[in-house]
Amino acid sequence: MENALQNLINSVTPPDAGMISEGQAHLDSLTKPVGSLGRLEEIALQLWRIQGARPLCCDPALIYTAAADHGLTEEKIGIYPPEVTRQMVENFLNGGAAINAMCSALNLEQIIIDAGCFGPSFPPHPRLLEMRAGCGTANFCKGAAMTARQCLTCISNGISLARRAAKQQIRCIGLGEMGIGNSTAAAALFCAYLNLKPEEVCGPGAGLPPGGLTHKTAALHQALQINRAALQTEDPLQILTALGGFEIATLTGIILGAAREKILLVVDGFISTAAYAAAWKLCPPISDYCIFSHTSQEKGHNLVLSRLGRRPLLDLGMRLGEGTGAALAIALIRSAAAVFNRMATFDAAGISKAKGGKYE
Amino acid sequence: MENALQNLINSVTPPDAGMISEGQAHLDSLTKPVGSLGRLEEIALQLWRIQGARPLCCDPALIYTAAADHGLTEEKIGIYPPEVTRQMVENFLNGGAAINAMCSALNLEQIIIDAGCFGPSFPPHPRLLEMRAGCGTANFCKGAAMTARQCLTCISNGISLARRAAKQQIRCIGLGEMGIGNSTAAAALFCAYLNLKPEEVCGPGAGLPPGGLTHKTAALHQALQINRAALQTEDPLQILTALGGFEIATLTGIILGAAREKILLVVDGFISTAAYAAAWKLCPPISDYCIFSHTSQEKGHNLVLSRLGRRPLLDLGMRLGEGTGAALAIALIRSAAAVFNRMATFDAAGISKAKGGKYE
Repeated sequence: MENALQNLINSVTPPDAGMISEGQAHLDSLTKPVGSLGRLEEIALQLWRIQGARPLCCDPALIYTAAADHGLTEEKIGIYPPEVTRQMVENFLNGGAAINAMCSALNLEQIIIDAGCFGPSFPPHPRLLEMRAGCGTANFCKGAAMTARQCLTCISNGISLARRAAKQQIRCIGLGEMGIGNSTAAAALFCAYLNLKPEEVCGPGAGLPPGGLTHKTAALHQALQINRAALQTEDPLQILTALGGFEIATLTGIILGAAREKILLVVDGFISTAAYAAAWKLCPPISDYCIFSHTSQEKGHNLVLSRLGRRPLLDLGMRLGEGTGAALAIALIRSAAAVFNRMATFDAAGISKAKGGKYE
Repeated sequence: MENALQNLINSVTPPDAGMISEGQAHLDSLTKPVGSLGRLEEIALQLWRIQGARPLCCDPALIYTAAADHGLTEEKIGIYPPEVTRQMVENFLNGGAAINAMCSALNLEQIIIDAGCFGPSFPPHPRLLEMRAGCGTANFCKGAAMTARQCLTCISNGISLARRAAKQQIRCIGLGEMGIGNSTAAAALFCAYLNLKPEEVCGPGAGLPPGGLTHKTAALHQALQINRAALQTEDPLQILTALGGFEIATLTGIILGAAREKILLVVDGFISTAAYAAAWKLCPPISDYCIFSHTSQEKGHNLVLSRLGRRPLLDLGMRLGEGTGAALAIALIRSAAAVFNRMATFDAAGISKAKGGKYE
């Protein structure tokens, strides 16, 4: 592994566990029955451990939506042709996609990264960053999706994106993606990292034609077979190189970089979780910087989440990606921070505390 | 039943089912795989049926937090003394409660209603409405909680609150409550309306002392027994009078009035669901105007929701009330409306549609 990456990984430390009791004591002093805000209190505590100071802050918050194309689309698995990746990037830039509508409604910044779509570069746009590691990955059914250099470039780009966010005082990054074919790449990564079977993680993605699930599963078996040498190394980087995508590896870099910068990360759905799995295999301490936003409708996400030991906040039957689940979760995280920051304590409000037994 | 109430109930009509196909066609024309936003699309469709015009709008949104006291607190069931209701109203007015923090974070208006706390009236405050049906209810373990007149007063107050919101162009009302003892009243209403057993709906509420669950369950049996004549009528109004609370009946009135005004309602947790149950028994068409925000941690809420045939949006282990779950859900509803209003269609964005089969 490159020295720079290894140094970064070594510099990521878990948030201070010693902060927990102070944060928990604060939560328990607030004017509500102990624990009655459930998972909002867990989130507030996680943010407290990361930031270590009041007020807790998750704004400004930003969605990074990384887009790239996948050589595996020549296997003709899904019902959307690969040019949709490019068309959707244009849609993001024109403000017409779901993630745009949500970012407007929720007051979130949004940046699109071209991590390597098919075709030429996009014309410049204030919300587009060009960080192309190539012109789509290679078909992983015929060999490695990326070269080692391409994978490292993506990770390095992601680390730069985290640094860029830190410079802009961003306190929370939501991870989004777009890439026709990337549910197949994500499924392959779950097989390799979590020892799952293609049949367990192979779902319809954005949509499959009749009989498509069999074809997708077969393609996945083929990819794992042809890349078996990389998989046998059990090296997270070699696995990501063989099976990942430019947008996935870029998100992996964002996670590594943001954890080092102590920025809260909000993982979106099935594909973003694959980027998380890669980052977590490379650097386990990143886990405490991440919140999982939602359980995707995509088959296998639930199983993957349980293997990762993570429980998302939302379960709304969504399966779109782009960062849409992350955007929704940020609204909940803001409320968790507000509760921690703004609520009165029992003492300050002069409210009678609960007695251990019956009140007299 | 009073003529005015019966007339109002008769004037509530379900939203136009004929709108569904047009709304669904619009959702399916947007640049995302069909159905990929899951329950957000359901919400958008519900709002479309209610409002019947674009743009869909759930702002300004308002949380009504109704507070009242319960004579049943003389049974000394919970660990918080009844003066906490009054103290928490003061906390709401001073901005120190969880619902205040969330309303700030989520940009929601908040109005507190004194529906009948113990003690004197509160001093005037810009966010307080005094609508007292009495000085706490009577102990329902010894007879009816309310007189018929008090119950009708509360419902009528709630209807006025809905009218007030309509005049202020409010498009969405979140239902909140505060009242020491009201989880016992809510449980009693669920037993009566949904034919459940006290053991199925009796939980810790804000907290119980050791052995408290047995005591609470026994009190509930006693209340159902002593009020059995009212229950046997199967008249929703007589049941609400016997077992409800001033804040619950006020919320019931808000639901009835808001449905008539075609304002979207967001039900909070266990107690608000009891107000919903009463409103639904009185006037089934209100159901299509309501969204259930979250599954409360309070034992029995899940069962109650399944009896009501409703599935909330969130499940965060919360059990606080005040409108906190409703507030969080409104952030999701805003996003659903934004998706419906702002997304580009496939045609407008020039994006390749999915083919029925494989793409060529």
